[in-house]
Amino acid sequence: MGYESLMLRMEFNHERTSFAEVAQTVSRFGGDIVAVDAVSSGAGSSIRDITVQAGQEGSEALIGAIRAMNGISVIHLSDRTFLAHLGGKIAVQPKMQVKNRDDLSRVYTPGVARVCSAIAEDPKKAYSLTIKRNTVAVITDGTAVLGLGNIGPYAAAPVMEGKAMLFKQLADVDAFPICLDSQDTEEIIRTVLAISPIFGGINLEDISSPRCFEIERRLQEELDIPVFHDDQHGTAIVVVAGLLNALKVVGKRMEDVRIVVNGIGAAGVSICKMLLAAGVRQLTPVDREGALVRGGCYEQPMWQWLSMQPQVGSRGGTLSEVIAGADVFIGVSSGKVLVSSDVRSMAADPIVFAMANPEPEISPEEALPYARIFATGRSDYPNQINNVLVFPGVFRGALDCRASGINETMKLAAARAIAGVVGSSELDEQYIVPSIFNERVVADVRAAIIGAAIQTGAARRVPPDFRGLTPEDRSVVPTASGLSG
Amino acid sequence: MGYESLMLRMEFNHERTSFAEVAQTVSRFGGDIVAVDAVSSGAGSSIRDITVQAGQEGSEALIGAIRAMNGISVIHLSDRTFLAHLGGKIAVQPKMQVKNRDDLSRVYTPGVARVCSAIAEDPKKAYSLTIKRNTVAVITDGTAVLGLGNIGPYAAAPVMEGKAMLFKQLADVDAFPICLDSQDTEEIIRTVLAISPIFGGINLEDISSPRCFEIERRLQEELDIPVFHDDQHGTAIVVVAGLLNALKVVGKRMEDVRIVVNGIGAAGVSICKMLLAAGVRQLTPVDREGALVRGGCYEQPMWQWLSMQPQVGSRGGTLSEVIAGADVFIGVSSGKVLVSSDVRSMAADPIVFAMANPEPEISPEEALPYARIFATGRSDYPNQINNVLVFPGVFRGALDCRASGINETMKLAAARAIAGVVGSSELDEQYIVPSIFNERVVADVRAAIIGAAIQTGAARRVPPDFRGLTPEDRSVVPTASGLSG
Repeated sequence: MGYESLMLRMEFNHERTSFAEVAQTVSRFGGDIVAVDAVSSGAGSSIRDITVQAGQEGSEALIGAIRAMNGISVIHLSDRTFLAHLGGKIAVQPKMQVKNRDDLSRVYTPGVARVCSAIAEDPKKAYSLTIKRNTVAVITDGTAVLGLGNIGPYAAAPVMEGKAMLFKQLADVDAFPICLDSQDTEEIIRTVLAISPIFGGINLEDISSPRCFEIERRLQEELDIPVFHDDQHGTAIVVVAGLLNALKVVGKRMEDVRIVVNGIGAAGVSICKMLLAAGVRQLTPVDREGALVRGGCYEQPMWQWLSMQPQVGSRGGTLSEVIAGADVFIGVSSGKVLVSSDVRSMAADPIVFAMANPEPEISPEEALPYARIFATGRSDYPNQINNVLVFPGVFRGALDCRASGINETMKLAAARAIAGVVGSSELDEQYIVPSIFNERVVADVRAAIIGAAIQTGAARRVPPDFRGLTPEDRSVVPTASGLSG
Repeated sequence: MGYESLMLRMEFNHERTSFAEVAQTVSRFGGDIVAVDAVSSGAGSSIRDITVQAGQEGSEALIGAIRAMNGISVIHLSDRTFLAHLGGKIAVQPKMQVKNRDDLSRVYTPGVARVCSAIAEDPKKAYSLTIKRNTVAVITDGTAVLGLGNIGPYAAAPVMEGKAMLFKQLADVDAFPICLDSQDTEEIIRTVLAISPIFGGINLEDISSPRCFEIERRLQEELDIPVFHDDQHGTAIVVVAGLLNALKVVGKRMEDVRIVVNGIGAAGVSICKMLLAAGVRQLTPVDREGALVRGGCYEQPMWQWLSMQPQVGSRGGTLSEVIAGADVFIGVSSGKVLVSSDVRSMAADPIVFAMANPEPEISPEEALPYARIFATGRSDYPNQINNVLVFPGVFRGALDCRASGINETMKLAAARAIAGVVGSSELDEQYIVPSIFNERVVADVRAAIIGAAIQTGAARRVPPDFRGLTPEDRSVVPTASGLSG
């Protein structure tokens, strides 16, 4: 229970204490004061709002210590994370105001009927005359949410809303959360197919493995809009992006390294597939029972597929055994499965991506003495391998070129684009992926996705900036065609 | 094809023509100039943008005549209704901006996990910590859209988006359109159940009869959030509101009048039920085969139900036969089914609501010489019986008191609230329902819905303005309970 961000409204008795003493107390209990606002101040006392980031150990001891201070009285205490969620994090807004009956008759009956008729005659006009062209469904069944597991559709909603916020802010994509009250594969497929018409893309999220593979495959087969399971492909893209840069730092080539991928669930499978597409020649997938081996026999279809790839080694063993001599470790499994001797046993200049959530496969303290490059999924260490770098730009690009799907070429292009945002002068052990707030990320990923979609035939529209300026929208406003014809 | 709103950018040669001549041409072809903007003006010529509302006959002849004018050159022509729809009419917006990693860790991983866990422990917290408490799904299968019929989910979207705009602007409800790619009753029920967790209410829309009855009933049975088929109940509520005021104007009582309801589909059935709840003692439901009679035998379950009500007459006959002597005609059927002699045959002070869309059951020109009060569903005549008066306030109220459903008592209260907005000093033959832009409408409907919901046990929460000020939200922010406990 770390990560709390608290707001304390407290009254200081200036004769008995000072702000400095409060700051010391906060610091002693692992907290960090991030903001102070004066509410009122008088002769002998003042009231201030103090925002504190609690440390790893949580806030309870810290709050107790502040309450026990002489000369301090805590008037009100609130949790900023919960405050930020009150009433939800997104809203649906009209793009224009309806000011009078004339406006009303344009956006609603009777005028809207002409627009409906135009779409009925040519359903492709939905892309121009409805929200479809900019709208993505963020769909979950709540079975594999963060590190929390199967918490169901209600509890999953805050994650989906957070994602919708990021879609809009970072890429101007309108995303709406859909949380499914079903965990049945067929029912989920049927439901998503049924609600698909208003959406231009489907972002599947936090659906447990192996159901997620079947759900994604079937939906992509039946729909002509892109279907993208972010836990698989978003993670794989940002891992490959980070790895491209990490290999540059250590001076190795994708073709020459041996990579251990630990945890062959949704993300692990997609990472393995992308690594093969990226040219990796020595891959060691590992799950709970040890390394998957070439020629092995596995019940799970994706494992079976992996075991048939020539790049997968035929030598079995435990994680500890197969990591020896490997160049790269990529963990999407669970906390504390590695020890420092495992890292020490790797080839020179070990690259370790320990992305288990919330606790990495090995702590930075244990890994860093031996790993040349260390990355996690966490925001409190350098090199955060965060799929927020991926999904906004991927969907911005896919929507703009009306991609029918997101293929391996497009994903690899996106990974290269993310890696490319970090310039060679900036690149070092501590900085292999860009910040999610770097505006070039979305722009470059978008361009990479569109370019690869056009090249592979997945694009059904060439955006204006890829073809000169021919505003296609004009064709659906009855100017040239209908009225003036 | 009426109702076009056009924008013409035209160059005037001042030696050869004038603005007055353009205005005359527009007027001669039934159009109306609603705005003029100067773009540029030089010595001998100027460029202006002229917005024209086309008349009933449409715009083609009008545009042809302007193009043919001497000294006028039309530079660009666009249809404002289509322009208003480009890219759709709504957007999904974050409620706050994510400015840094601290913000990110609060609204997304890792901080969001604590919020998810709180909901997993107590799913009711979804009402406080997600968008559920303010969010409504506007759901259609596209089978009965406006007067257009079964145009499917893509073509129905502009109506649903328009509705979402009005929900937000008029009642601050976040509404999202869901257009279903299925017209199968069971599939629709399953789909709506599956996607329900994120929504606080379900507005069904433009689903054809009789499927709509089964769909609504089953959904309301299985869900604990309100399910409201607007074509049925929205229409019924605003009809009863208008009728309450119309009866006041003519000095008759609900108990004493005989009412003919023509068209016993989705809206007609709901109107009949509400009229009975409102105290009507003589009701004559009429469909294509003539009047439904008490004791008759009908295949459609709702017709059978009606035929068993003591207030329904036992005398059969055609519409023309049964309207004779009636006090009130309510049409939700199709255009031109009445002639003026039908109105003449009614009792003194006839009240005629001719709401077929887009063409009323009888034109105002034919009806008005004989009808004391005449109303339609159209915005271009007085007394528009428009369910935009209903759904924003109904859902605002239902969400605020977390109603489990919308019962007959709540609907009747909403109708009375709408009627009550028109003060007795304003009330007359031309003004029986308020404007949708009258802010009292939503406020009064909301209060009526909440009051009736509390009274009937449908409310699961008493809003602060109904109980004094005890901000419930505080209970979910771990202040009193968790952290400071």
